[in-house]
Amino acid sequence: MSKKKNQGQQKPGLKIIPLGGLEEIGMNITAFEYEDSIIIVDCGLSFPEDDMYGIDLVIPDVTYLRDNLDKVKGFFITHGHEDHIGAIPYVLREINVPIYATKLTMGIIDHKLEEHRMLSDVKRKVVSYGQHINSGSFRVEFIRTNHSIQDAAALAIYSPVGIVVHTGDFKIDYTPVFGDPIDLQRFGEIGKKGVLALMCDSTNAEREGFTQSEKSVGRALDDIFSDHKKKRIIIATFASNVDRVQQIINTAHKYGRKVFVEGRSMVNIIKTASELGYIKIPDNTLGDMDNIKDIPEARTVLITTGSQGESMAALSRMANGMHKRVQIKPSDLIVFSSHPIPGNEKAVNNIINELFIKGAEVIFQDVHVSGHACREDIKLIYSLVRPKYSIPVHGEYRHLKAQAAIAEDMGIPKDHIILLKTGDVLDIDEDHAKVVDHVSCNEVFVDGLGVGDVGNVVLKDRQHLAEEGVIIIVMTLESMSGRLLAGPDIISRGFVYVRESGDLLEEARKTMNETMDKIQSKNITDWGHIKSEIKDAMGEFVWRETKRKPMIIPIIMEV
Amino acid sequence: MSKKKNQGQQKPGLKIIPLGGLEEIGMNITAFEYEDSIIIVDCGLSFPEDDMYGIDLVIPDVTYLRDNLDKVKGFFITHGHEDHIGAIPYVLREINVPIYATKLTMGIIDHKLEEHRMLSDVKRKVVSYGQHINSGSFRVEFIRTNHSIQDAAALAIYSPVGIVVHTGDFKIDYTPVFGDPIDLQRFGEIGKKGVLALMCDSTNAEREGFTQSEKSVGRALDDIFSDHKKKRIIIATFASNVDRVQQIINTAHKYGRKVFVEGRSMVNIIKTASELGYIKIPDNTLGDMDNIKDIPEARTVLITTGSQGESMAALSRMANGMHKRVQIKPSDLIVFSSHPIPGNEKAVNNIINELFIKGAEVIFQDVHVSGHACREDIKLIYSLVRPKYSIPVHGEYRHLKAQAAIAEDMGIPKDHIILLKTGDVLDIDEDHAKVVDHVSCNEVFVDGLGVGDVGNVVLKDRQHLAEEGVIIIVMTLESMSGRLLAGPDIISRGFVYVRESGDLLEEARKTMNETMDKIQSKNITDWGHIKSEIKDAMGEFVWRETKRKPMIIPIIMEV
Repeated sequence: MSKKKNQGQQKPGLKIIPLGGLEEIGMNITAFEYEDSIIIVDCGLSFPEDDMYGIDLVIPDVTYLRDNLDKVKGFFITHGHEDHIGAIPYVLREINVPIYATKLTMGIIDHKLEEHRMLSDVKRKVVSYGQHINSGSFRVEFIRTNHSIQDAAALAIYSPVGIVVHTGDFKIDYTPVFGDPIDLQRFGEIGKKGVLALMCDSTNAEREGFTQSEKSVGRALDDIFSDHKKKRIIIATFASNVDRVQQIINTAHKYGRKVFVEGRSMVNIIKTASELGYIKIPDNTLGDMDNIKDIPEARTVLITTGSQGESMAALSRMANGMHKRVQIKPSDLIVFSSHPIPGNEKAVNNIINELFIKGAEVIFQDVHVSGHACREDIKLIYSLVRPKYSIPVHGEYRHLKAQAAIAEDMGIPKDHIILLKTGDVLDIDEDHAKVVDHVSCNEVFVDGLGVGDVGNVVLKDRQHLAEEGVIIIVMTLESMSGRLLAGPDIISRGFVYVRESGDLLEEARKTMNETMDKIQSKNITDWGHIKSEIKDAMGEFVWRETKRKPMIIPIIMEV
Repeated sequence: MSKKKNQGQQKPGLKIIPLGGLEEIGMNITAFEYEDSIIIVDCGLSFPEDDMYGIDLVIPDVTYLRDNLDKVKGFFITHGHEDHIGAIPYVLREINVPIYATKLTMGIIDHKLEEHRMLSDVKRKVVSYGQHINSGSFRVEFIRTNHSIQDAAALAIYSPVGIVVHTGDFKIDYTPVFGDPIDLQRFGEIGKKGVLALMCDSTNAEREGFTQSEKSVGRALDDIFSDHKKKRIIIATFASNVDRVQQIINTAHKYGRKVFVEGRSMVNIIKTASELGYIKIPDNTLGDMDNIKDIPEARTVLITTGSQGESMAALSRMANGMHKRVQIKPSDLIVFSSHPIPGNEKAVNNIINELFIKGAEVIFQDVHVSGHACREDIKLIYSLVRPKYSIPVHGEYRHLKAQAAIAEDMGIPKDHIILLKTGDVLDIDEDHAKVVDHVSCNEVFVDGLGVGDVGNVVLKDRQHLAEEGVIIIVMTLESMSGRLLAGPDIISRGFVYVRESGDLLEEARKTMNETMDKIQSKNITDWGHIKSEIKDAMGEFVWRETKRKPMIIPIIMEV
C-alpha cells in the first residue's frame, strides 16, 4: 500500500453528472455515482425550440447510463411535472430499474406508462415523506416541499462521502391549499448533521423577496367572481396545478356556479388527482361538457388548458372561433391564471388580442403566483442546510449565476460554488470538488413514433425546405447512350406560387434544356457529374432571378 | 336640388382608412380621403411572424390606393422607424407621389431610396415643425413631438369637415437629449380651435404613470461607466435611437474611452445623423473597428446592434464566438440598453445565457426608457386636444382597448370612441362617425427579390415541408403500354436520417413495388389515378410506421 492510501487521500469521490437540464429549462436528469452504484434524480423532457422543425419532444441522451447499465439502481423523482418525468417512458425502455416517487407523482407517472403500455413492465414504489430508500451505495430520503403541484419532494442523498440535498423545484408556502408546508425543520436537522452539497432550484434566483402563497390566488379569484356575477367566466391555467383547480372549484361552489373542464390534459390530471384524494370536488359542482348548454352561462365556470397560447389547446380554439362548444362573446370574462413561460409571450398576446376583438373582458394580471422560491426563500434554505458546497440547479445559466451570487452572499467561498454544465462529471468529497470529465449529452429528438431518427442533418434540411422550398428536376436517360429520353421536368413546392410565376418556371425550363444540351454535347455521362451540373445551373438561375436558394434535387432515371 | 341637399345633410364625410398597423404592431399606413383627394400618413413594414417561413419582410396591400391612383396626393411621414417608412421603396414604385417629412426622417428615407436606386425618381420635401403643406383638399401641419428617434412629428390634418390630430409614435420628454420638448402649446392651441378626431399612440396605454425622460438613461450609463473602469464595455441598443448613441458617446468621452461602432444599420444611421447634425461626436472619440486592437480594452466602448437577439446581428455573433474581431471574455461588461420587443424574449435570453457562460458580466435592466407615452401622458394629450372623437392607433388590439378606456375616463362618450380594424373605411364628420365599408388589406410578403409571389399556398407548403419533410417517388412508364420501365425510386429530405433508417426506406420501396404491381395488374393507366394510388399507399405506410405525414410527391416520366 502506498503512503497516500494510508493517509486516506485516494478514497474515491462521489460523481455528480447532470445529463440534462442545466443551462436551459427542462429535461432535468442527474446521475449520482459512487463506485458500482448509480442513482438518477428525475427523468424529464423538454419542448422543442423554434428551430427544431416538426419535433414533438426532446429527451435526454442517456448513453452514459446505457454504458453503465449494471450500475444503475433506480430513478428518484421529485415531482410530477413533464420536465421531471416526461422522458420516463422513453428512457425506461432501455434502463428498466425501479422508480421511487410520492403518491401523486407516481399516479401521474402511472398514467403516462399506461399510455405507453409499459405499466406492467416497470417496477414502481410509492414513498412517503421521511421515508428512506436504500439503493446501492446510497440512501435517499424524501423531504416535503411545496411547489405548483402537490406531493413535491426534496431529496437528501446519503452517500459514503457525505449528504447531498437536492431541492427539486420548490417554493416555501406557509399556507398551502392542500397538505402541509415545506418541512423546514427537517432541512435544519439534516443541515446540523453536516451537508456536503446543496443543489437548489435557481428558477427565481433573479427575483427579489419571497414567493407568495398559493392561497393569495384564492383571494384574487374571490374578488373576480364577486365582481362579475353576470358573466360567464373562463379560466385558463396549467393542467398540473391541482391546487389552482381546487381553488377555482371552491370559489365556483361558493358563488353557485357549475364547473366545466376542457382540454385533455386538464381532464386527465383532475381524474388522477381526485382518484388519489388530492382534490375535493363538492357534489354537483362538476358538470359534463356535453351538457354545458343546459346551464345559464352566468352560472358556469369553464376551466381550460391553453394558458400558454398553445395553438391546439382549447382556449386557442375558442379565441379563433374553432371550438365546437364554446363561442367567445362580449358577455364572457376570460381569466389567465398563469404567467407566460419565456418564449410564449407572443402566442399568449395573440390570444388576448383575439379575445378582445371578440368583445370579451380579459384579466391577465395578478391571478397567479410562482411555484419557485425567490431570493429570500433561497437564502432561508441556505441558512438551514449550510452546505459545504453549492451546486445551483434548475434554471437557465443566468439563473444559476444569480444563485451563485446568493450563495456567495451567504458565506460560501467562491471556489465552493460550482456551476455545472450538462454532461460535466463533478468529482466531489469533503476535501475537493472538481469537474474531472465530460460525457456526451446530445439532445434526442422525438418525432411521431421515431426516437432519435431525426438528427441535425434532417433538421437542417427541414430548415432549408421551410425557408426556401424545393425544386425537383427529373429526367430519364437511356442507359447505354446517356441520351435524354424524357424531361427535364421541373416540380416545385414552397418556392413560388406557380400560377403567378409561370414565366419564371418557363424560363427555368429553358435554362434546364440548354444545360442538358451542353451536357450532351460535352458527352458527360457520369450521373454524379450530370446532377451537379444541373444543380449548379438551376441554382445560379434561381439566385439571379429571385435572390433565393431553394433546395434543388436533381433525379435521373435510367431506362 | 333635393330638400336634403339644401339642408346640407348630404355633405360628404372624411374617410379614414387604415391599410395596415391596427391590431398588430408594425406596417403603419393610413389613408385620409375627401372627395377627389387622398393623403397617406406613414408607409411602414412589419417583420414576419414565426409561421411566415422564409419571408424577409411584410408590406401593406395598397390595392385601394392603386385603384384610386389619380386621387393620391402625397405621403406624410411621422418619423424614421421601419414600421413607418420601411415600405416606401416598394409602395412608391407604383404610387409615385411626393413624400413630406422632417429633416432626419427624410435623411433616413433618402438612404433607403438610394439603396433601392430610386432616389432620383421620387419627389421629396423636407418640412419644418409648424409648416403647413397643402395637398388636394387637405392641409397638413407638422407638430414637434418626442420619440426614441429624433425629428418625430404629430400631424394636424385640416380637412373640409374638421381637424384630425394624428400623434404618430410619441412620448412626452421635458428634457430631451437633443432638440426641444414636444410642442404641447401647439396641441393646446389646435385643441382650442376644435378638433374632430384624435388618433393617438396606444403602445403604452396599459402602462401606469409617465414615461421617463431619455436623460435618465444618461444617468444610469454614468453609474455603469463609473463602476466598471477596468472592464471593456459593450453596449447593445437600437440603431435608430440616435439620442441613446449620443449619450453613450458623451459618457465614453467623459470617462476617456474610445467608441467603436459595430453592425451595419448602426454605422449607417450614425453616418446619416452626424451628416445632418443630429449627433455630435467629440474629436478623436470615434475609433475605426479595424484598429480596435490598438487600444487597451478598458479604454474602449463598443456600441453594437443585436439588442433584440437577432441571430445575424453583431452581438449574437460575439456571444456565439463567431465574431471576427470581438471575443467575449470574463473582463467584459455587456449592457443591454433596450427592452425585448414581444416575441424576442427567448432570443435575448439565449444571448444573455451565452454571455454569462463565457464569464462576462451582463446588465440588462434599468438602462432603457420607452419611446411611447404611458397612461398619464396620454391623458395630458386628451386634455390639450379635447377631440370630439377618439380613434386609438399604434398598438395591438389590447392596447387600443386600453386607450379606449382612458378616453372614456377623459369624458369622451363611448359611441365617440372608435376602434378600427385594418381595412375599415370610417366615414366621419361633425355629425357622425361610422364604418361604412371595408377594403381588401392582405399582407404582401417580400422574399428575396419577389414581392407578393409567395402567398398562403406557398407558405402552407413550406410549413408542411418544415414539419414533416418530403418524400419523392419517381418512375418512368412506357408511353403506349403504361409499362413500368424504371423506378419507383424513393428520395426523401427532412424526413428521417437515411443511414439510421435504411430499413424503413427499404420497406417503403417494397410497398411501392407492390403498389405498382397492383396498379399494373388492374390496368390503371390514367396518370392522375396512378399518382393518387401511389400517394395514398405511401402516406398510409409512413403514417403506420412513424405517425408522421411528410409531403409526398409522385412524379411520372413518360418515354
